[in-house]
Amino acid sequence: MPRSLGSVLLTDFYQLTMLDAYRRSGMSGTAVFEMFVRRLPPGRGFLMAAGLEQVLDYLESLRFEDSELGWLAGCGHFGQDFVDWLADLRFTGDVWAMREGEAFFADEPILRVAAPLPEAQFVESRLINILHFQSLIASKAARVVLAARGRTLVDFGMRRAHGAEAAVWAARASYIAGFDGSATVEAGRRYGLPIFGTMAHSFVQAHDSELAAFLDFARARPRGLVLLIDTYDVDEAVAKVIDIAGRLDKDGIEIKALRLDSGDMAAGSLRIRRMLDAAGLDQIGIFLSGNLDEFAVDEYCRGGVPVTGFGVGTRLDVSADAPALDIAYKLQEYDGRPRRKRSEGKATWPGSKQVFRSLGEDGRIVRDVIGLASEPLPGRPLLHPVMRAGRPLESNPSMAEIRALAADTIASLPGACTRLDDPAPVVPEISAALRTLAEVVDESQAP
Amino acid sequence: MPRSLGSVLLTDFYQLTMLDAYRRSGMSGTAVFEMFVRRLPPGRGFLMAAGLEQVLDYLESLRFEDSELGWLAGCGHFGQDFVDWLADLRFTGDVWAMREGEAFFADEPILRVAAPLPEAQFVESRLINILHFQSLIASKAARVVLAARGRTLVDFGMRRAHGAEAAVWAARASYIAGFDGSATVEAGRRYGLPIFGTMAHSFVQAHDSELAAFLDFARARPRGLVLLIDTYDVDEAVAKVIDIAGRLDKDGIEIKALRLDSGDMAAGSLRIRRMLDAAGLDQIGIFLSGNLDEFAVDEYCRGGVPVTGFGVGTRLDVSADAPALDIAYKLQEYDGRPRRKRSEGKATWPGSKQVFRSLGEDGRIVRDVIGLASEPLPGRPLLHPVMRAGRPLESNPSMAEIRALAADTIASLPGACTRLDDPAPVVPEISAALRTLAEVVDESQAP
Repeated sequence: MPRSLGSVLLTDFYQLTMLDAYRRSGMSGTAVFEMFVRRLPPGRGFLMAAGLEQVLDYLESLRFEDSELGWLAGCGHFGQDFVDWLADLRFTGDVWAMREGEAFFADEPILRVAAPLPEAQFVESRLINILHFQSLIASKAARVVLAARGRTLVDFGMRRAHGAEAAVWAARASYIAGFDGSATVEAGRRYGLPIFGTMAHSFVQAHDSELAAFLDFARARPRGLVLLIDTYDVDEAVAKVIDIAGRLDKDGIEIKALRLDSGDMAAGSLRIRRMLDAAGLDQIGIFLSGNLDEFAVDEYCRGGVPVTGFGVGTRLDVSADAPALDIAYKLQEYDGRPRRKRSEGKATWPGSKQVFRSLGEDGRIVRDVIGLASEPLPGRPLLHPVMRAGRPLESNPSMAEIRALAADTIASLPGACTRLDDPAPVVPEISAALRTLAEVVDESQAP
Repeated sequence: MPRSLGSVLLTDFYQLTMLDAYRRSGMSGTAVFEMFVRRLPPGRGFLMAAGLEQVLDYLESLRFEDSELGWLAGCGHFGQDFVDWLADLRFTGDVWAMREGEAFFADEPILRVAAPLPEAQFVESRLINILHFQSLIASKAARVVLAARGRTLVDFGMRRAHGAEAAVWAARASYIAGFDGSATVEAGRRYGLPIFGTMAHSFVQAHDSELAAFLDFARARPRGLVLLIDTYDVDEAVAKVIDIAGRLDKDGIEIKALRLDSGDMAAGSLRIRRMLDAAGLDQIGIFLSGNLDEFAVDEYCRGGVPVTGFGVGTRLDVSADAPALDIAYKLQEYDGRPRRKRSEGKATWPGSKQVFRSLGEDGRIVRDVIGLASEPLPGRPLLHPVMRAGRPLESNPSMAEIRALAADTIASLPGACTRLDDPAPVVPEISAALRTLAEVVDESQAP
């Protein structure tokens, strides 16, 4: 992530006031924080981790610029001694994390930070901001991927995503989950995603006739041509396409697909398919867009509607049915002693933890166990060391590697997790040692 | 908006392919586009315009940097002649817009762009991205402001906002709608918003005792001190506060409020209030946070719960009950001729339009009429000229001016719009001249 997208002041004010207090009290022992989702939203049978690359970039480059320090010194809330202290603040800690593309469930730590208390505390707000959104979108996109059963999927959501960063990160997260690419050009540049596009209604309207618009666009886009056919009358538009297809073919222009964006798209697709097939144009695909989500995609695919691809926009990029996760970043240890929050309904498991995943012979998850990081439990540990003393331990995996892991993860999910309606997430078990520790902490922790 | 937050490549790929086609065909006549919301989400009786300042900054500074042009030239989709043409692209058009803070309803244009077709087309994706999100949040925040009946409101949503830009813009938009400020430091720096903060559970947990945490924090924050009291046991925490209040007062430290973030906060607030009052600490306020929205805030305020302020986070910053608006930017005229999209369920009103608002003697809206921009209709016109030939016509209003307009607008809304449950928006009338134009366009527009 380029620094420019997030000033170090992109944080909650209380992080700074707490740092000032830690500094005054000399509290700089090692703190262990973990990030986890308390419970999955209704309609999610699994979540998918995404955003680690941006987290590591943020941690590695964390520093206060002179302009930021100057603003803090003048804002009336802080003394110069604290501002001077901030000038030297870097992230020097260790980080463990689930790999991007990994599926996870309630209470499972997806990230663990061990660092001097002020550092581990300060990064809370932005770490949540990064991992929350990308995991939110990857989780939604994975459901759309399951529903599409191999058909082409393109992220169309930039315009109604919540600002610039949401737009490019939604493209990235949905690509991780298995989308084929995005319409967002900046996501193509920044992350190497394939970019796709068709044409807008305004293009057709600006021309004196729909036919003129089709021909103009075809000449400009001889490869991968997709024509939008619902600006006026769909059937008349398809008739025009049939009329010009041969001529365009002679000029080396191949119509790849027709896009339908409104009306009864199931009936429309069937009608268009019949018209195209009758004209011998069975190589032209049908691409749908407009208010799509996993349920709409599933309905078209199950209903035998002859669709080759979908543009999924707003409902993906804002995760419309669940626009936020109940995610938290909580102190689990300070200065070698485990800690536990006991707030009503928000209690946490103490200590440094690990998630151990066991698969059955069919390759599907049979058990997730949350245990102490030091426990020798069976199963694959999901948290890996990714940063030591503020430096990444290895280079970031490629998008292709992350996508492959995501596909493997999806294939390992039990059917109850992946069904669209009323899914049932895996409920991780809590190891006996962790339960014992929680009891000990409850008894000994000074309130 | 600093350029750094949004590359000019933050657009949909089809904008570029269409521009290439316009360039080849020499289509550079004046196009008029308007932005409007097709219908309000359930649960919204009005919407509030926000984001114009960022729109004008974007338009004024629009240009392709060398690095962006280089990437486009190498991405395999465009020829060098098109890339060279993009190097000279600027926005040279005229813009009319509703002022930030203005209430609006379905079908009412909130922005009108008149510019050479390629320019007016290209800016679509980012203009929607900017105005959609800020208007979405201002609309949600205005409902929270109505529910809070004058109590302090602070935006706490940064961590679960969708990325960096969403976080700072949610702070800005909620401040416009009447919030008192935000916890997001960067919003304070960028927009001059008052920033607020308390302390986190981790701060309490990191200390050996809750009492030590309170005393440490008090010494670091002698002004505006807010103590978080639900890390362990609320009643015990309040007892500690009562115990130390006198001592702190002698040291010149005033406890402003106690924050409660979990459990049954209505019962908790009543109990805390009784305890504080019995100890003669009636000046200490009670501040609530945790999963709040306008309904929760309303319930606490109506129920006589003695709360002085609220931190409203996730549900505000993602507009949880309606995380997107059905907003569109549509071609209304090209080269002097009105245009109309007729797609099933998505037809638009043609031509350059204006919204005329009439208030009754009680200062409340009695009628909104959508007419032609050239019509001399009664009522206050809501669209103002804000940019001519690519230059802003006046300096941006201050945040204080925008907030004053928003407050006036909210005061002008009929009760049916502002009630929290099942609100009924104003339904704008369509002028006779506009209806006639639509019929003429339908008859004459070549399909």
